[in-house]
Amino acid sequence: MVHPENYSLSKTRDTLHFPPSSREFLEHYLPPTRNIPLSSNPTKPHITLTFAASLDSQLSLSPGLPTALSGPASKAMTHYLRSRHDAILVGVGTAIADDPSLNCRIEGVGGYGGEGLEGQPRPVILDPNGRWAFSEEIKVFVLAREGRGRAPYVVTGTAELDEGRRRVLEGCGGKLITVGMGERGLEWGEVLRVLGREGIRSVMVEGGGKVINSLLKVGNQGLVDSVIVTIAPTWLGEGGVVVSPPRRFGEDGNAMSAVKLGEVKWQPFGEDVVMCGRIKL
Amino acid sequence: MVHPENYSLSKTRDTLHFPPSSREFLEHYLPPTRNIPLSSNPTKPHITLTFAASLDSQLSLSPGLPTALSGPASKAMTHYLRSRHDAILVGVGTAIADDPSLNCRIEGVGGYGGEGLEGQPRPVILDPNGRWAFSEEIKVFVLAREGRGRAPYVVTGTAELDEGRRRVLEGCGGKLITVGMGERGLEWGEVLRVLGREGIRSVMVEGGGKVINSLLKVGNQGLVDSVIVTIAPTWLGEGGVVVSPPRRFGEDGNAMSAVKLGEVKWQPFGEDVVMCGRIKL
Repeated sequence: MVHPENYSLSKTRDTLHFPPSSREFLEHYLPPTRNIPLSSNPTKPHITLTFAASLDSQLSLSPGLPTALSGPASKAMTHYLRSRHDAILVGVGTAIADDPSLNCRIEGVGGYGGEGLEGQPRPVILDPNGRWAFSEEIKVFVLAREGRGRAPYVVTGTAELDEGRRRVLEGCGGKLITVGMGERGLEWGEVLRVLGREGIRSVMVEGGGKVINSLLKVGNQGLVDSVIVTIAPTWLGEGGVVVSPPRRFGEDGNAMSAVKLGEVKWQPFGEDVVMCGRIKL
Repeated sequence: MVHPENYSLSKTRDTLHFPPSSREFLEHYLPPTRNIPLSSNPTKPHITLTFAASLDSQLSLSPGLPTALSGPASKAMTHYLRSRHDAILVGVGTAIADDPSLNCRIEGVGGYGGEGLEGQPRPVILDPNGRWAFSEEIKVFVLAREGRGRAPYVVTGTAELDEGRRRVLEGCGGKLITVGMGERGLEWGEVLRVLGREGIRSVMVEGGGKVINSLLKVGNQGLVDSVIVTIAPTWLGEGGVVVSPPRRFGEDGNAMSAVKLGEVKWQPFGEDVVMCGRIKL
């Protein structure tokens, strides 16, 4: 049992504390520590799929409405997980709806007591059709300019940037990465290959619903190395943003479980529970 | 952590074992033990809402398809919970789709090593419009005739029984209970009042989706005394039977959480987790 009061916010720069005793149960599901040098022949990055949902498997009450689901302990955990990954990936819908910070505020990382940008993950926004009309006031850009987060990479299919957005993105050290589109949009295999080539060895996929459900699909789920889900003791009620992958059918034509997990561990976390597991293929 | 091997099936009559060490965490959420004599002025029965769901809050892949979600430990727990309630209630859809036994197989209860029917709950089937076309081969009737379960009560709105069904039901000691229907069908308050008058002091509501979602609705959720939900580490995928109550709106017209829980406890149970809680009103 983890008590929320151990996850206090320090007064300087909203630094978050995540005690070593809580880190242990996550270790088995995390990529190797980030100090290991890049291999000259990078393989697919380690993918950790992580999000917080209600009992009825919803991320929020509606796409435009960030919903406080989980407690302070889960928030500190999320930031600890960010410190353990080279990149955080979200879909463009989440970037537009939530204007998320996508940095790491664990005490001791760069910008929060540490040197430079050490421990800060690279924000990656998946924007197949170039919908993201960002400006310099968007949080990831503000944080990048302040040295409190890395500059974002925007992964897109066919979109080209207008001059204004190019200046905002490249002005802080970010970049646009174009990948070939498949018939049904971006292909995960291709996206991960490109990120691997950029030196990214581990990606924490945080949302939103569309990105998560797409990764849990048959054909994509093999790319996911581990799953860390926080569940809050709340039913949001019909009509929100639901995590539930497309239906799967067996060889006999009958419906079957879309995703089964193995190596499962459950850890109570304040009023929430955290589930760690690996997808059984 | 609870290990599934402790929940072995004994060889005689499929008796289930649920160790005392596992009973403890449930106690706070259960009605008083059943030995307490009936008061002459019964109030509403204690309602425990309990079910097993997938990570995407589904009870089964489809209404007609019982889906093995949870492991042997959860099964033994369900039967222990049944021994602690005067009645088990399911909707007619579940009765038709699953032909459930609705008895208790914990070692030492009546029919499984114990005297008479001691410890056996009363099956209650909620069938507002008399859809249940049961015959003597249906499991609850077989078990009642064999002394391995109580005879069922069928709670209905306006339906009348034909002679064949009346003989099956009353022949084993069961009965039809008719309650007045409201505009939108049976009203929970009325159903529970009638069950209270029958001497039932505690009801475990097990399903299906329609019954559960209706009890979690604003206006009904105050009738629920505790919630015990098992979650299995599986996403069934879109299109199954979902637990998610109707959307709720605050006074400002904005959507809000439909149900929030307090006094929450999480207990890992084999590969599953069990959550106990009480609804915050």
